[in-house]
Amino acid sequence: MRVIHTHSEAEPAGRVGRLQCARTLAFDVVRAPGLSVGVHEAFAAAVAGRRVLMITSPTVHSLYGEALTSLLASQQGAHQYEVLPLGEARKHMRTVERVCELAARMKLDRRGLLVAVGGGVCSDIVTFAASMIRRGIDHLRIPTTLIGQVDAGIGIKGAVNLQGLKSFVGCFHPPAGVLLDRAFLQSLSIHAIREGLAEVLKMALVRDAELFARLERCGTQLVASRFQTPTLDGEQVVDQSIRLMLAELQQNPFEDLSSQRLVDMGHTFSPTLEERSRFRISHGDAVAVDMALTCAIAAELGLMSIHDAKRFIGLLVQLGLPVASPLLTVDACRDAIRSVVAHRRGHLNLVTPMRIGAATFLDQEPMTHRLLKAALARVTAFERELHSITVTPPKSSVRFLETGNATPAL
Amino acid sequence: MRVIHTHSEAEPAGRVGRLQCARTLAFDVVRAPGLSVGVHEAFAAAVAGRRVLMITSPTVHSLYGEALTSLLASQQGAHQYEVLPLGEARKHMRTVERVCELAARMKLDRRGLLVAVGGGVCSDIVTFAASMIRRGIDHLRIPTTLIGQVDAGIGIKGAVNLQGLKSFVGCFHPPAGVLLDRAFLQSLSIHAIREGLAEVLKMALVRDAELFARLERCGTQLVASRFQTPTLDGEQVVDQSIRLMLAELQQNPFEDLSSQRLVDMGHTFSPTLEERSRFRISHGDAVAVDMALTCAIAAELGLMSIHDAKRFIGLLVQLGLPVASPLLTVDACRDAIRSVVAHRRGHLNLVTPMRIGAATFLDQEPMTHRLLKAALARVTAFERELHSITVTPPKSSVRFLETGNATPAL
Repeated sequence: MRVIHTHSEAEPAGRVGRLQCARTLAFDVVRAPGLSVGVHEAFAAAVAGRRVLMITSPTVHSLYGEALTSLLASQQGAHQYEVLPLGEARKHMRTVERVCELAARMKLDRRGLLVAVGGGVCSDIVTFAASMIRRGIDHLRIPTTLIGQVDAGIGIKGAVNLQGLKSFVGCFHPPAGVLLDRAFLQSLSIHAIREGLAEVLKMALVRDAELFARLERCGTQLVASRFQTPTLDGEQVVDQSIRLMLAELQQNPFEDLSSQRLVDMGHTFSPTLEERSRFRISHGDAVAVDMALTCAIAAELGLMSIHDAKRFIGLLVQLGLPVASPLLTVDACRDAIRSVVAHRRGHLNLVTPMRIGAATFLDQEPMTHRLLKAALARVTAFERELHSITVTPPKSSVRFLETGNATPAL
Repeated sequence: MRVIHTHSEAEPAGRVGRLQCARTLAFDVVRAPGLSVGVHEAFAAAVAGRRVLMITSPTVHSLYGEALTSLLASQQGAHQYEVLPLGEARKHMRTVERVCELAARMKLDRRGLLVAVGGGVCSDIVTFAASMIRRGIDHLRIPTTLIGQVDAGIGIKGAVNLQGLKSFVGCFHPPAGVLLDRAFLQSLSIHAIREGLAEVLKMALVRDAELFARLERCGTQLVASRFQTPTLDGEQVVDQSIRLMLAELQQNPFEDLSSQRLVDMGHTFSPTLEERSRFRISHGDAVAVDMALTCAIAAELGLMSIHDAKRFIGLLVQLGLPVASPLLTVDACRDAIRSVVAHRRGHLNLVTPMRIGAATFLDQEPMTHRLLKAALARVTAFERELHSITVTPPKSSVRFLETGNATPAL
């Protein structure tokens, strides 16, 4: 925390006084191999003797409960372990309040620490609870899903749904730290791995051609091995994806400087697609479909070469991610654009690829019926072409797994 | 918002990446005379055409409902006016959630504005709700009580009770602005005026001998006129008290730099006194009793002259504030010290006056049974002496008004 005294602004009429202050926030994302089997050094360093309330889900508990309780038992300070039913349907204020009540009952003080072990919902709930307990205490995140390790678990946001509005209430509250153990990914479904991979592909598409080329080489193997082999590739793909994500967040952490965010790639059409499927289409699948369409729009507009658009969509298909959905009609696309413009303070700012590894923002270009229809048709044509040249037949693009049961470690 | 890149720290083992950012926050406290009768210029300037959700209490509504709805009607943007039952018993998550639901129903976006018109509880509820709606939207405060105008309404905190723990969950979320109209104070009870005055006296005791001398001269008249006359004194006492408060908050706004805070004067023994009275003793009365005892402790220890201690306690008595309570026994004092030490990270840091206008922090001095007993006896002796030389008999020190009904504009 640093206090800044600035008196350069003109004093408004009738001003009695002014308060101005700045708060500096920082955290590290750290590798903690062995965490999933109870190796506790990194955990002990992060906890530093504080009182701990650890929150996890029944699924994570059934897989890693023994390792987690042994991590806690290795601590000197008082600690409590709580298994709470989590999941999108429980992502509301009542669950956040429940965590606060547990903290109140164990008399957690300002130096107390919450620990979230699980997927995105666990991270959201614990982050939001930590932000409000005694006006903000520390929390540690141990993401157990790929999407948590490369995306949801490394940001500074936490939020829950209210009145059917997704993430209507929440906070910006950075964790004290994020501990990564790639071994957690072993217990994920292949579908959950693919979901996380969609976010990795997003970062590669907008920022890193080399990461993309690496995924072309070893992506199939990483999916099949759940990121365990090739070991070096698994580690480096996760690490590089995290570094790219952190670098983007660093530019505009509170989303108040600009509504141009490269990390919004794949997040324009996907919320509407998720909603229209009543959330039967998972987030990662929707992001993949969105990115395929966005590449096709870029190709239609001559911003991206057809070769690059095909190359990107080709990798999605190769890795078993969907690239189209019958629910994503031209009308659905136009609805999506309307709601995104409202969210982005009146601007579309469509993150549009120019080539693999570089993107720009489209704001003035009208997203006409004709353009969207042509782009949707182009995706279908690409996909048909890709299927006809693929040796092993890929899954159909309309294959959508249900999010709930398909991702055991959420 | 400013982003800082610092890489001076040693990189921890296994670090994949780091996010570091800083958020700058600032707000003005502005005089808005006429606000209580619907003069809308200052309000319009603060609202700036945004969608507004105004929250107030039934009491404020009954007194100023017409003025408030006319303020809203003068706005171009969509607006909604909501009267919610507030008060200490409603200071919980459910009320905060209710405000968030109202905001969701009127589809308040990131540029939306909450407005709190009322006392401390209204400010707490609205501040906390604003901090979480869409991860933080702006809010404006229009404090209608003296304690709100000089203390509760100008800080950056908001909090509610949980599981019987006072202010267990909350936020640091500065308002977009605070609008002051002294005319609101006309409808307060004399008791509510005295409550606010206790916080003014606190700032005078620790920082400003001149403000104290002014209150010796015109305090009685300010209480009787509810801060309306003498006009200049009323205005300047409020303004100076606010400036002193803001200057103190500016040093350590997030309370993370130090547990030495001058604004904690009068807030060591008072929480326990409030609790032991089951909140029948109001906050301001408890702060007055705490300050009287603290002056006596300072006199016992030879840190403050007996003359100055008598002078301070004399002004409390003159203004009708209590200086002692049968509930504040030596045991209660020792309980209070224990719980404050826990809150202040293991330190007592008793704000102790050295003379009128200057204070220090006592941390090492043991608060023995003997010292506390002697100090409590000294307060009683002072009070008896003061009563015997006072021409008009002051109210008894054990007079405690109930907080609820006695403060109509809360």
